[in-house]
Amino acid sequence: MAQDALSEFIARMHELKDLGGAIGILSWDQETYMPAKGGEPRAHQLATMQGLYHERLIAPALGEAIAALEQRPSLGAEQRAMVRNVRWERDRAVKVPSRLVVELAEEQSRAVEAWRGARVRRDFSAFRPHLEVLIRLRREQADALGHAGERYDALLEGYEPSMRVERLAPLLERLREKLVPLVKAIVDTGRKPANPFAGRRFDPAKQWEFTLRLMRDLGFDLEAGRQDRSTHPFTGGAGHPLDVRLTTRLEADDPLSGFMSTIHECGHGLYEQGFPLEQGRTSLAQAPSFGLHESQSRFWENLVGRSRPFWAHYLPILRSLFPQELAGVEPEAFDAWLNRVEPSLIRVEADEVTYNLHILVRFELELALMRGQLQAADLPEAWNERMRTFLGLTPSDDSVGVMQDIHWAWGEFGYFPTYAIGNLYSAMLLSRLEQEVPGVWEAIGRGELKVVLDWLRARIHRQGYLLPAEDLVEQVTGSRLCEAPFMDYLWKKYRPLYGLR
Amino acid sequence: MAQDALSEFIARMHELKDLGGAIGILSWDQETYMPAKGGEPRAHQLATMQGLYHERLIAPALGEAIAALEQRPSLGAEQRAMVRNVRWERDRAVKVPSRLVVELAEEQSRAVEAWRGARVRRDFSAFRPHLEVLIRLRREQADALGHAGERYDALLEGYEPSMRVERLAPLLERLREKLVPLVKAIVDTGRKPANPFAGRRFDPAKQWEFTLRLMRDLGFDLEAGRQDRSTHPFTGGAGHPLDVRLTTRLEADDPLSGFMSTIHECGHGLYEQGFPLEQGRTSLAQAPSFGLHESQSRFWENLVGRSRPFWAHYLPILRSLFPQELAGVEPEAFDAWLNRVEPSLIRVEADEVTYNLHILVRFELELALMRGQLQAADLPEAWNERMRTFLGLTPSDDSVGVMQDIHWAWGEFGYFPTYAIGNLYSAMLLSRLEQEVPGVWEAIGRGELKVVLDWLRARIHRQGYLLPAEDLVEQVTGSRLCEAPFMDYLWKKYRPLYGLR
Repeated sequence: MAQDALSEFIARMHELKDLGGAIGILSWDQETYMPAKGGEPRAHQLATMQGLYHERLIAPALGEAIAALEQRPSLGAEQRAMVRNVRWERDRAVKVPSRLVVELAEEQSRAVEAWRGARVRRDFSAFRPHLEVLIRLRREQADALGHAGERYDALLEGYEPSMRVERLAPLLERLREKLVPLVKAIVDTGRKPANPFAGRRFDPAKQWEFTLRLMRDLGFDLEAGRQDRSTHPFTGGAGHPLDVRLTTRLEADDPLSGFMSTIHECGHGLYEQGFPLEQGRTSLAQAPSFGLHESQSRFWENLVGRSRPFWAHYLPILRSLFPQELAGVEPEAFDAWLNRVEPSLIRVEADEVTYNLHILVRFELELALMRGQLQAADLPEAWNERMRTFLGLTPSDDSVGVMQDIHWAWGEFGYFPTYAIGNLYSAMLLSRLEQEVPGVWEAIGRGELKVVLDWLRARIHRQGYLLPAEDLVEQVTGSRLCEAPFMDYLWKKYRPLYGLR
Repeated sequence: MAQDALSEFIARMHELKDLGGAIGILSWDQETYMPAKGGEPRAHQLATMQGLYHERLIAPALGEAIAALEQRPSLGAEQRAMVRNVRWERDRAVKVPSRLVVELAEEQSRAVEAWRGARVRRDFSAFRPHLEVLIRLRREQADALGHAGERYDALLEGYEPSMRVERLAPLLERLREKLVPLVKAIVDTGRKPANPFAGRRFDPAKQWEFTLRLMRDLGFDLEAGRQDRSTHPFTGGAGHPLDVRLTTRLEADDPLSGFMSTIHECGHGLYEQGFPLEQGRTSLAQAPSFGLHESQSRFWENLVGRSRPFWAHYLPILRSLFPQELAGVEPEAFDAWLNRVEPSLIRVEADEVTYNLHILVRFELELALMRGQLQAADLPEAWNERMRTFLGLTPSDDSVGVMQDIHWAWGEFGYFPTYAIGNLYSAMLLSRLEQEVPGVWEAIGRGELKVVLDWLRARIHRQGYLLPAEDLVEQVTGSRLCEAPFMDYLWKKYRPLYGLR
């Protein structure tokens, strides 16, 4: 065994990666091309595949190979990182008793079902009992995973390895304290940009052509990936840089919805296509955290895709595709609409200024739930109270309040903060990019997006999961996760847009 | 164990079925939507999945459960059939040493690669060494599988369980003796129908609409399956009646190519959608043999889809879609072209009269190879000699002769006869259908295809793999596999078409 531990480890890592890739394609198919009645056999196939993945992940032989390699000083940096990544995933799988895994999976199915019905009927009481069970099970799971007193850490870590509440909570609180006045200042201007597309129709077939052009221009390799349409846009595929798949959703009366969705998912997709190709079947070909993955989609969607230089280049192109539909739409009106800020009830429709406040509502509630300071029954009131304080709004009912997201019905507590972390990382990276490539905005204005991708590829994408997310960002920017670059970015952008002081 | 053998067996059968379904979707995706560069990771994913399938199939616990159930007289007919089917597949997997499985897989990859190049360069000598290895390995495999002196039986059985050379060879020889004079009689008439579509173009988008209409009319449930386009049409999917996927290929200058391809694959697809739904995750939800599967595609494509009543209904519909393109095309000319008989070099382009002669060339050669009566080096000459005798043609070179099919490069010996068996079964079934449903052709002429599907569903599809293929056909028609109904069908159809005596 000793001398074969490395080849044993690599063969098993490859097998896990292959299984994960197969699951990825089955899941993608489920959302794109699977016929309506195919859901039942697909659920069985996925459950069987996930069971096999879990079985192979917790196999004692893999654990032994990992333990042997951890004693071997001769391993290179890449091999050490591979071992660390698989060890981390395996430890989390081993620690949770299979009885709990099954209970969670079963309750998730029931809860999602109940959530759908309860949301339509605006009846939180029908969802509450399921939420109670999920909270109990996830607390149990957190205790099984282990933590140093803060239960939430064990869940957060599943999405954002080595992030801790101890550091995240004060950081997000500072962010909140800085965002609330900015939102208020914007609201107080009373400016409400008009929708320049109102009453106009944009042929989805032509929208589709434009999204494909955007993908190509951004640097997405359409021979190593594809775009399709689905109800909810996502990025998936074979978990390999040579097969990355994204989806978008086009709406005839709201062209920006599809364009921004394509740019967002393309940001995820460019990251995955940029993972080290020669390590495509290893644990290096993945993002070190959900937050860093999200930083890439938001970097392209918000920082680049909502910028003036970007549309200085693309608005004329769009105008040549939709000459009548865009007649009379001036760049200023386009920009004002694209970047309008307005406190709203629904997270997925929020602008980049208010978005993080939606995350903060959820983060504070999740933390209180896991600490046992809050019960499921108290959620609607606690939710509405925070919406009032952070955004000055009160949901008319729970379907546009505490029940708006599917995440809690999946039992996903600890996931939401990664959206905010992604926003903060993206601004840290932009600030560094501006320093290292002084003419970057002029290049973007000329449609030369390659300078941006090249920089991200070299600094972030090609690194894969060699370093933990925050170490990698520090290596690139010289700083740990912080809110300052994000707030600087917002003020710099929204001060002129809304005429703030 | 004893009292749990049934649940153990069923759980393992379900798992195998789920894995097989996942492999089916991955393979379908590979031919339809996978991006060009995705082939490398996909090959790894499929190899891993197939390895897992094999591992689970040969698991001792499955063997023990089967052995225990075979001792249990209380099992119902369906359960006994499930056990028999899995036992059969498992025995074949267990008997072949894994060393040989790996050698075969590796040599298949190399041989397909060599075949592609050799075929382009028309150089059999570059393919020959690989063919020699494959012949040797397949002979070894046959001996490992076991047989009673006729090595070919062990391979044939892999596609057509319980069929034997002893019975098949004389049957196919009789078929050849009857076909050769029919072909000669047709050729001697000197009639060569003109192509009524020459110089006309049929918009593929409209062809596509028509193929979907055909599918719906034939009874294909588009909520439990779909059609896509691929280079080589095939039927695949999740191996479950609720998710069946077919592909077609459309050519602007040859509309019948796509229509007949859709009808052919739809015949396969209707069979799979008709498997017993409540047994969808069991070994009953499959065809008992490749020949019976093929009988369904050929039944619809040739017996129904090339009939006068069928086009009496559809030609007017097609004409309303393509009024200009079909201007002046009379039903007689359409029918004559659709059913033209002409000896040709290429099997996949052959008509239903000469098709089986192409199969006979291959069957006789495969048999001689497995018996050791023929060497790979002698194949081109032996091939050309038979083409002269059976069809009166001599290939100009081996690319349109012995190297035209990919099957031998895959090492598939024993597969070709199932095409002929399918043709014979289809005519046996038609003959019986005509007896049981006297007005069937009038119904087809009115576009009422449901009577045909209902009959096939009740007699064949819903049976799944409850009985071996020939037992099922005998149950339906009262007869074992024979050539008479097929020859009757051909003479009845082609006598008037070609004015034969």
